[in-house]
Amino acid sequence: MRENFHQQLEHLKDQLLTMALQVDRSVGDAVQSYVQNDLNLGQRVLGAELEIDRMEREIDRYALELLAMEQPMAIDLRFILAVMRINSDLERVGDQASNIAERLHEVHRSPRVDLPVDIDALGVHARKMLTLSMQAFQEGNSELAETVMGMDDEIDQLARQAFSSLSRVIGEQPLAAPQALNALLVTRILERVADHATNIAEDVIFWQRADDVRHNAHRQ
Amino acid sequence: MRENFHQQLEHLKDQLLTMALQVDRSVGDAVQSYVQNDLNLGQRVLGAELEIDRMEREIDRYALELLAMEQPMAIDLRFILAVMRINSDLERVGDQASNIAERLHEVHRSPRVDLPVDIDALGVHARKMLTLSMQAFQEGNSELAETVMGMDDEIDQLARQAFSSLSRVIGEQPLAAPQALNALLVTRILERVADHATNIAEDVIFWQRADDVRHNAHRQ
Repeated sequence: MRENFHQQLEHLKDQLLTMALQVDRSVGDAVQSYVQNDLNLGQRVLGAELEIDRMEREIDRYALELLAMEQPMAIDLRFILAVMRINSDLERVGDQASNIAERLHEVHRSPRVDLPVDIDALGVHARKMLTLSMQAFQEGNSELAETVMGMDDEIDQLARQAFSSLSRVIGEQPLAAPQALNALLVTRILERVADHATNIAEDVIFWQRADDVRHNAHRQ
Repeated sequence: MRENFHQQLEHLKDQLLTMALQVDRSVGDAVQSYVQNDLNLGQRVLGAELEIDRMEREIDRYALELLAMEQPMAIDLRFILAVMRINSDLERVGDQASNIAERLHEVHRSPRVDLPVDIDALGVHARKMLTLSMQAFQEGNSELAETVMGMDDEIDQLARQAFSSLSRVIGEQPLAAPQALNALLVTRILERVADHATNIAEDVIFWQRADDVRHNAHRQ
């Protein structure tokens, strides 16, 4: 019976890892669609959101069933709760990917202007945080989770630089304003992806250490 | 014993309602501080965030204890899970209030310009959604929760209008660009507050109906 229960937990874990792969692919596609002005790729991101939503519901239902039927204690209880939280964060990352794809619709007909912001680099950094946070989940590795939490400052700084350089463009080249505004919103969206990765890392630590690290991450 | 358990659930509910009042006050203060350029009030919002974070941890710990000790079934289990999710959404609303207060720091020295956006009205609408979603939680009222979910379209529309009129200002009056940009980010923040209120309404329905309404809200 308990053996079976642990197989069920493994199955739950696999489901969440599969969803994470899909979500990460969507973020990558969304950034590429935006940077390369590729409306078809943007469309694929919007289609994938439905599949991500379906996965979220399935994982939540399965986790709830395990909670109700097995009445797990201690670390197993924390594991299932962590899965439910991570599930919710991953789904919101999927929403962010769609938000980027929708931004593309607003600008794809405008002539491209050179903007002093490296959306690609921001996307790479945000996805790296996401991948590492899910690797920490896969391995139950709280040290790696702590590393992810430390990476948040860097993306905040990249986003702050983007804000000030895009403001400058907007002031100096009013015709570039709509595109610069859009790029600004995309940087905020990628900042939120990184925030979700940080939440995931916190949940890994909660699961592993029974330790609520939220809001204490940067206190020493 | 079970009587005692239901008292504990009531206590958990009261704690969450108390937290919601504090979060709502912070959003109200944040909007006022921004609209009235009141740095002291903005400071109060940043201070309140620490208290909100403390409340979140306490509620989460208590909910986890109830899950582990009482091994609740069916509607009680769903209630505790809904509390944990709402708790997390409320804390993120508190973060949004702080984000608004931080935006104020960036603009409070600039001369004020008249912008074609009614931040006050957006704030009122977002807070109304938050208050009604928590009333639905207090009453276990899933009809009211559905009403809240229907209010999301209106705020999306207000935010879309704000985006296009602020873009226009930025194109026509480059000197007003930094303030218009800031106002734009504040409208996005208030849109996110409304999103969290929608999440809360969904959790009320999940608790009451065992029905996962997420992503089905607008399908008929």
